[in-house]
Amino acid sequence: MAYKRTPQYETLRDLNATARGDQHATLVIQRAKLVNVTTGEILQNVDIAVQGARIAYVGKDAGHTIGRKTNVIDAAGRYVTPGFLDGHCHIESSQITPVQFARAVLPKGTTGGFFDPHEIINVLGMDGLKLMLEEARTTPMAAYMQIASSVPSTSDEFETNGASIGPKEVAEAFTLGEDVIALGEVMNFPGVVYGDEKMLSEIEETLKAKRIVDGHYTWPADDDAKLSAYVAAGVSGDHEVTSVEDVVNRLRLGQYVKMRRGSAWHDVAETIKAYTELKLDTRRMILVTDDRSPESLVDEGHMDFVIRHAISQGVPPMVAIQMATINTAERFGLSNDIGMIAPGRFADIVILEGPLVDIKVGMTIAAGEVVAADGAMKVELPKFQYPKSAVESVHIDRKISPKDFVIEGPVEKGTAEARVIEVRENHVGTVEKHVPVKCLYGHVQLEDGLSKMVVFERHGRNGNIGQGLLSGVGFTKPAAMATTVGHDSHNLMVIGNDDALMAQAANRIMNMQGGIVVVTKEEVTELPLPIAGLISEAPFEEVAAGSKAISKALLDAGCTMNYAFMTLSLLSLVVIPEIRLSDKGLVRITDTGFEIVPLFV
Amino acid sequence: MAYKRTPQYETLRDLNATARGDQHATLVIQRAKLVNVTTGEILQNVDIAVQGARIAYVGKDAGHTIGRKTNVIDAAGRYVTPGFLDGHCHIESSQITPVQFARAVLPKGTTGGFFDPHEIINVLGMDGLKLMLEEARTTPMAAYMQIASSVPSTSDEFETNGASIGPKEVAEAFTLGEDVIALGEVMNFPGVVYGDEKMLSEIEETLKAKRIVDGHYTWPADDDAKLSAYVAAGVSGDHEVTSVEDVVNRLRLGQYVKMRRGSAWHDVAETIKAYTELKLDTRRMILVTDDRSPESLVDEGHMDFVIRHAISQGVPPMVAIQMATINTAERFGLSNDIGMIAPGRFADIVILEGPLVDIKVGMTIAAGEVVAADGAMKVELPKFQYPKSAVESVHIDRKISPKDFVIEGPVEKGTAEARVIEVRENHVGTVEKHVPVKCLYGHVQLEDGLSKMVVFERHGRNGNIGQGLLSGVGFTKPAAMATTVGHDSHNLMVIGNDDALMAQAANRIMNMQGGIVVVTKEEVTELPLPIAGLISEAPFEEVAAGSKAISKALLDAGCTMNYAFMTLSLLSLVVIPEIRLSDKGLVRITDTGFEIVPLFV
Repeated sequence: MAYKRTPQYETLRDLNATARGDQHATLVIQRAKLVNVTTGEILQNVDIAVQGARIAYVGKDAGHTIGRKTNVIDAAGRYVTPGFLDGHCHIESSQITPVQFARAVLPKGTTGGFFDPHEIINVLGMDGLKLMLEEARTTPMAAYMQIASSVPSTSDEFETNGASIGPKEVAEAFTLGEDVIALGEVMNFPGVVYGDEKMLSEIEETLKAKRIVDGHYTWPADDDAKLSAYVAAGVSGDHEVTSVEDVVNRLRLGQYVKMRRGSAWHDVAETIKAYTELKLDTRRMILVTDDRSPESLVDEGHMDFVIRHAISQGVPPMVAIQMATINTAERFGLSNDIGMIAPGRFADIVILEGPLVDIKVGMTIAAGEVVAADGAMKVELPKFQYPKSAVESVHIDRKISPKDFVIEGPVEKGTAEARVIEVRENHVGTVEKHVPVKCLYGHVQLEDGLSKMVVFERHGRNGNIGQGLLSGVGFTKPAAMATTVGHDSHNLMVIGNDDALMAQAANRIMNMQGGIVVVTKEEVTELPLPIAGLISEAPFEEVAAGSKAISKALLDAGCTMNYAFMTLSLLSLVVIPEIRLSDKGLVRITDTGFEIVPLFV
Repeated sequence: MAYKRTPQYETLRDLNATARGDQHATLVIQRAKLVNVTTGEILQNVDIAVQGARIAYVGKDAGHTIGRKTNVIDAAGRYVTPGFLDGHCHIESSQITPVQFARAVLPKGTTGGFFDPHEIINVLGMDGLKLMLEEARTTPMAAYMQIASSVPSTSDEFETNGASIGPKEVAEAFTLGEDVIALGEVMNFPGVVYGDEKMLSEIEETLKAKRIVDGHYTWPADDDAKLSAYVAAGVSGDHEVTSVEDVVNRLRLGQYVKMRRGSAWHDVAETIKAYTELKLDTRRMILVTDDRSPESLVDEGHMDFVIRHAISQGVPPMVAIQMATINTAERFGLSNDIGMIAPGRFADIVILEGPLVDIKVGMTIAAGEVVAADGAMKVELPKFQYPKSAVESVHIDRKISPKDFVIEGPVEKGTAEARVIEVRENHVGTVEKHVPVKCLYGHVQLEDGLSKMVVFERHGRNGNIGQGLLSGVGFTKPAAMATTVGHDSHNLMVIGNDDALMAQAANRIMNMQGGIVVVTKEEVTELPLPIAGLISEAPFEEVAAGSKAISKALLDAGCTMNYAFMTLSLLSLVVIPEIRLSDKGLVRITDTGFEIVPLFV
């Protein structure tokens, strides 16, 4: 295998000699209908010559570069595009390892990504980054890592996680390699806006290291003083855009805007109107996934799916492809390496089947090698070895009992007004609702489709328990789901409407050292995720099947939301409006920061 | 004065606090009609708050940032654009120092430039770069320097110059500061295409230092193997485009294309058709000047003139302004510092008077300070001290006599076919014409409007003399022009039709230690350029007047070409087709490199 993505200066002599015809190309693609993302043209009958991992020649006839050993592929007039790039993605959300992620997305045409491993870093700290980085380097992907900025996403005041990242760790991360390219989404945006010294120092270290700062800002974008304060501090891109106004206001301040179509966050349909309706310059618009559940990778796809979706919203195919290739590369200062089919760039190339609008990937070439064709991988990838510390990360030393799920009410008997987290299908945001709940013997009684949510601190730090109430989950029978995938602190999160089933699910998770369990009176469905309690070591096909089984179990229990687990797993992510539950209790975003509020009004 | 353009990480706390309203802005612009180059929108009633050298806030109302000491400017609905950037420029061609250049262009709205001091480097070597760099740093401009790649432009085989730049010097240059940003135009493109080790090593050192490589390629762009070999070696931009095909072919290979409107190279009208007719994506199209004569800076302007010209060719004002702001900044990886009016960026801002299409600069703000208004500078700039070695650079130890201008013919009496360099108005390229010339007593006799051109090596290295013949100069009476501005080796170049006047002009230049002299029987007109024989120490207004006098003297002698001196000074630049004269003789570009050819066919 030769996925070595060496700097251009190490290979320029070979590329130069190949283009000129003095050295034989390793690979030649003939008769491409080239999607030229630099000019915005579709060019007929283009030949591409590759030397090792990079492109040497693009032009009318690569005949002069072909030798006896050159692998010649006849595109026969098919559309050929640069490999797709995911401008913001958490691999952990797909619950698979980087190698398995590569196996899942390369056949879909994704050849590179900007990965923010902040889930695993929340559990394992810098070791988590290093493991993801090292494994990703063994894949054919142009995999760029980010160092998580907000670990914990807020502070110990609002949540308990397994590690802490500060300016020192940020500076250290950038010494690990050029492929650690950015400071990951700065979710503690109130901290940045109000001049929190730790957050500003992390940004300072990033800019000093000539790296890029990615954002995550959810206050209304029309408060332009706050957004300016965030941008002025050095945050130059953001994916947390859910309205067209979000897009417009960020672009106007010079940010790159990443429009997201995750499995369960369907923001593109709304945000893309900044182009389809307002006709703003698209060069700083980028398509991203953020989080894709493993089964959605199989059922829908990856960046191919997001591009198709953008086209379905009225974006011309060329523009949609630019949003997943050259725009992304330019955002990260990498357009001399990736994002286009041109001499000097890595040979990350997709050959499509059929009409361009279908974005149906026939063949994927990554770093100059045919890695996938007809939907399947054509190369074997090595298995990565995880240390024991990474697979034993659920540190709760006691058995959980049904009593842990009893919620004390403010009255012995009668009703009390509770703050309920309303879950919304296909959106990251929740709504705070004030709902009268019944108390009996001083305990909250579930009615009207409410569920309980309980968060157990699982990093062995304080044994905290946070309790809350949910609406919109939809369980129609006694059911419980437990998981260690509870963004971003990834404590043990249990959601259900039956204390005994909730305890059963929680204990099962502890035995598995992490994963997802759905328990009803009839059935137990489980997906073990032993790496940091987030990721499976199994092949992605198995994990996708396991994830699908979880979805089905949730559906059978009445939870009908699209990719329900993705939405549920975010219910402890306190940096997303309006209200969330951590191990410290209910957390709300205010105009000036975060606050813990009591369950009862 | 405070032109310190410090990195963003040193100022982000102040910017952040200012945007939020916790610190008073140093400058506020109210009620701007903002030309937002990121979105492509014109926005009404925008306020901009500046802290020191950078922008802190852009939005609806900067009232919260205004304190007692804040300088508040009411734009009163005027158009406000980012300061203009010149993406490729040789300051030496304006024959003034960087400080004087700043004085000339800041009132015209140019706040930054990418300067390739390869003229002075050809004479003084690395010292030339350092002098230009140090002086430019004292100006309010965002001045980025390039280290010349091709010094000499070809090799000692084809020309003699005063210094040699190789990979070692290139690597050293990048240690001088972040503002040494690129390898200057790689004019020895045949060398690159054919794998010349010195050229490839220079590129290697540049990419290793994470800098950018600028190009200069003049072979027909439809030979895509050669152009690919050039691009594959790492050259990512080019300004040497004179046809729409040149633009299209470079863009398709992923290069940034710089469209030039110098004083005497009028390429934009043709090259801009890549947009106005072919509608190619404009993000990689950039407007540049390359070379502007001092009087053209006064009479026409600088980037304001080039933008106006692009608009006159049918480019919408927004797109034309993008080509001189954000596009340029993105090409050099600097869009977090310059090229847009957005938080975090340097406060390089232009307030226009009247309609946008007029691009009439009313006020220029650079690095947060009002530096020019109503066409005049508002701040004094310090005078830079040049060392003796820089102002004594004409090393010819003898008197030049009329005999030096006698051209020996191949026959004693009769006609012989000579290679004549035909000069073309408003174009950099020359044409090789074969013309029968009369010989008498073995000497060439001038007829039919021909002139002589003689190049004397002036760096004290070998005393070479090259002789040639020109057509198209247009002298209608006995006249001679001598100059040490003879691109790129800057030897003493003498053009004329009278041996005695030519000798007189040449000797006068030696006495002045460089400059330009036009001599007729009635009059001697001179412009001393003592710094490296290229640059005057005088205020630019004086130099512009001197340059105008030279133009008038040439015109009076019959040379009617637009900015004639600019065109004449390039007649020894052997890297431009088709044929040139150096101290080594006539040099021609062939399909494989350069060749010296005899004067007679």
